[in-house]
Amino acid sequence: MSIYIDPEVAASLRGYEVPERLGFGTAMAPIMFRAVYQDGCWSQGELIPYAPLSIDPAAKVLHYAQSCFEGMKAYRTQAGGIALFRPEKNAERMAFSAKRLCMPPVPESLFLDAVRTVASYCANLVPGNSGESLYLRPFLIGTQADLTVSASSSYEFYVIASPSEAYHSGSMRLWVEREDARAAVGGTGDAKVGGNYAASLLSVGRLKERGYDQSLWLNPSDRNSVDELSGMNFFAVIEGTLHTPALTGSILEGITRYSLLELAESLGYQVVEESIPVDRLLSQIASGSCTEAFACGTAAIISPISVIGDAEHCYELQQAPGPVAEALRQALLDIQEGRAEDRFGWMQAVEPASF
Amino acid sequence: MSIYIDPEVAASLRGYEVPERLGFGTAMAPIMFRAVYQDGCWSQGELIPYAPLSIDPAAKVLHYAQSCFEGMKAYRTQAGGIALFRPEKNAERMAFSAKRLCMPPVPESLFLDAVRTVASYCANLVPGNSGESLYLRPFLIGTQADLTVSASSSYEFYVIASPSEAYHSGSMRLWVEREDARAAVGGTGDAKVGGNYAASLLSVGRLKERGYDQSLWLNPSDRNSVDELSGMNFFAVIEGTLHTPALTGSILEGITRYSLLELAESLGYQVVEESIPVDRLLSQIASGSCTEAFACGTAAIISPISVIGDAEHCYELQQAPGPVAEALRQALLDIQEGRAEDRFGWMQAVEPASF
Repeated sequence: MSIYIDPEVAASLRGYEVPERLGFGTAMAPIMFRAVYQDGCWSQGELIPYAPLSIDPAAKVLHYAQSCFEGMKAYRTQAGGIALFRPEKNAERMAFSAKRLCMPPVPESLFLDAVRTVASYCANLVPGNSGESLYLRPFLIGTQADLTVSASSSYEFYVIASPSEAYHSGSMRLWVEREDARAAVGGTGDAKVGGNYAASLLSVGRLKERGYDQSLWLNPSDRNSVDELSGMNFFAVIEGTLHTPALTGSILEGITRYSLLELAESLGYQVVEESIPVDRLLSQIASGSCTEAFACGTAAIISPISVIGDAEHCYELQQAPGPVAEALRQALLDIQEGRAEDRFGWMQAVEPASF
Repeated sequence: MSIYIDPEVAASLRGYEVPERLGFGTAMAPIMFRAVYQDGCWSQGELIPYAPLSIDPAAKVLHYAQSCFEGMKAYRTQAGGIALFRPEKNAERMAFSAKRLCMPPVPESLFLDAVRTVASYCANLVPGNSGESLYLRPFLIGTQADLTVSASSSYEFYVIASPSEAYHSGSMRLWVEREDARAAVGGTGDAKVGGNYAASLLSVGRLKERGYDQSLWLNPSDRNSVDELSGMNFFAVIEGTLHTPALTGSILEGITRYSLLELAESLGYQVVEESIPVDRLLSQIASGSCTEAFACGTAAIISPISVIGDAEHCYELQQAPGPVAEALRQALLDIQEGRAEDRFGWMQAVEPASF
C-alpha cells in the first residue's frame, strides 16, 4: 500500500535546523509516520509533520498502559548513504510485544515501509560522526475511549525519529537489585512494553542516591540469577569466555544481544548462554576470573560496566571497557557504518527521498 | 487554592444530554478537571470542557507507562443530595501509586478539590436509581517529551467522570491463572498503575475462549495462594467465616475491601485476613465447606462468583450470590446511598454547583 505524504512534510523538513547539541532521543525530527487501526483494518500510512497527538482523556493507553514500542537506528555509512540495522527483527519483536498486550500486530510490511519512509525523508538529518545516528522510535497505542479494563478496539501506530549523538553512558556502576522487580514470571518482561520501564524507575532513583547508575535486575523466579539491566542485556567475560544469561521469559531478547552473539562466535570467541547466579558472578569478579562485564542495547551498542555492588560490597571490574567489549563494539559499528563487509546481511540501504 | 472555572463549562453542561443507555465508564461527562505539574510546582486547578488531550508523541506516558489512576463514585443519596465515598482514601492511594512510579503525588487538598468540583458541577448527571452513580476517574500522566528512560519532569492530573449504570458483572466464572502474572514480587501489584492492567489482558482474552469471565491471580512468589482478580479483591465464606487474602505486596489494597472488612465485623461476621492457598480453596468448594465467594471493588461493589476452574476441574459454588455477599452489598450500598446511618463517617456530601 502506498504511503500518503502530507504536503506540509517538505516544508517541515526544509525549515528544520538540527540542534547543535543533539543528546540522545531528545531532539525530535519534524516529521512522523502514522497509521490507524479501526474495525479490524489498518489505514493507509501517512507521513505528516511532527505534532502533538490528540488523545481522548479516556483512551486505554493513558489508563491501562496498552502500548508497546521499538528502538532502532538509521546510520550514515562510510559511502555517505543511509542504512537500517536488521529492521525486520524490530518488526518481529514489536508484533510479539503487541500480542502480549492483546494489540493487533503491525504488519511487517507496514512496519518496514514506515521506518524506511521516515529514514528516507530524514536522510539529511542523519548525523555523520561515528556512533551518531537517527534514532527511530516506532510505537503502538490503544486509543479507544472507554474506561472498561479490556483491549482497545482502535489503535494508532507512529514512528518518530531523533537525530542523536553517540550514546555515552560512560562506564556504569550497577546495583544488584534484590528488592524490586521490573517484571514477573509470567509477566511482560520479554515484551517491549511500557509497564516494565515504569516499574524500573523507583529502583533507578534509589540507586542514584547511592552513587550507582543502573539496576542489575535478577530473575523474578529465583531472585538470584542475572536477568538484564533496564533496556539493556548483560554480558560478562569469565576466563576468556563470553557469558550472557539464557533467555528466561523475563528478559527482553535484545537485537544487539543476539547480533553480538553471532558476531562474537565469528570472531572466535567462545560464547555461553546460560544462567548467571549473581553471587557466583560477584565472587568471580573478586577473584579476578571475571575480567570484564558490559551491557548492550540499540542506544549504546556496548556500555562497559566498572562496578557491580550491593548493600554489603562493591566489586570492581579490572577493565572498563575491556578488550572484548571494545573489539565487539568496533566490529559491530564497522558493519553498521559500512566500514566492514556486511557478511551477515544485516544492513538495509535506504534511498534518500527527494522533495 | 481556588479553582479556575472555564466560562465554557456551563454551556457544556447545559448542552449535555445524558444517554439513555449508560453502560459503565463509557458515557463521559462533558467537563473535566486539570492541573499541571512543572518545575516542581502544581498549577492552579481548572474545570474545563471535556476534550481530547494534546500529548507530545515523545511523552513518557506513551512509551514508559508512567501513569496511575483511581476509581471512585459520587452517589445520589436518598435525600436527593450527592455524596462521595471515602475520597481521602483514594487521594492517599493515588499518592502511593504515584510514588511507586517516581511521580509527584497529587497533594491531598488538590485531589479532594478536584473530585468535589467535578461532582459538584456534574450533580445533575448523577443518576438516581439504586446502584447507579457518577463514576469518577482521577489520573496522573508523565508528559515530558523525551525518549530517555527516566521519570518525567512534567505531569498532568485529570479527573474525568462517567454517569454509569449499576455495574452488573452477573455471577462470574473465575479461571485460576497458573501461567501468567499481573505483577511481580517487588513489582507494582500494590499500586494502581497501568502496567498491571496491560499485563492482565492476555489472560482474560484466553479464558474468555474457555467460557470464563475473569482471571483469579495467584501470588507471584508462591504461585499458589490467591492474590486478587484484575481490579477486584477476593473474598470467600468458609464455614461461616469471611476470608480474604492478607495483603502480600502484589495485591491492590481495595477501598471497598477494607470497608467491607470493617462493615462485616460490625455486622457480627468473623473475618480472617490470611493467605488462601488455591488448592485448599478448591477442595473446600468441592466439599461444601466454602459456601460462597465474591469479588469486591468500586465498580461492582460486590460481584458473586459462581465457578472457579482450571484446566482440570470446574468447581461450582453453592450459591451465587450467597447470603453473606447480598447482606454486605446491601449494607454498604445503604450507607453509600444514604438509606442507612453513616456510622463510620465514610460519606462526604457535595453541594451542587449553581451555574
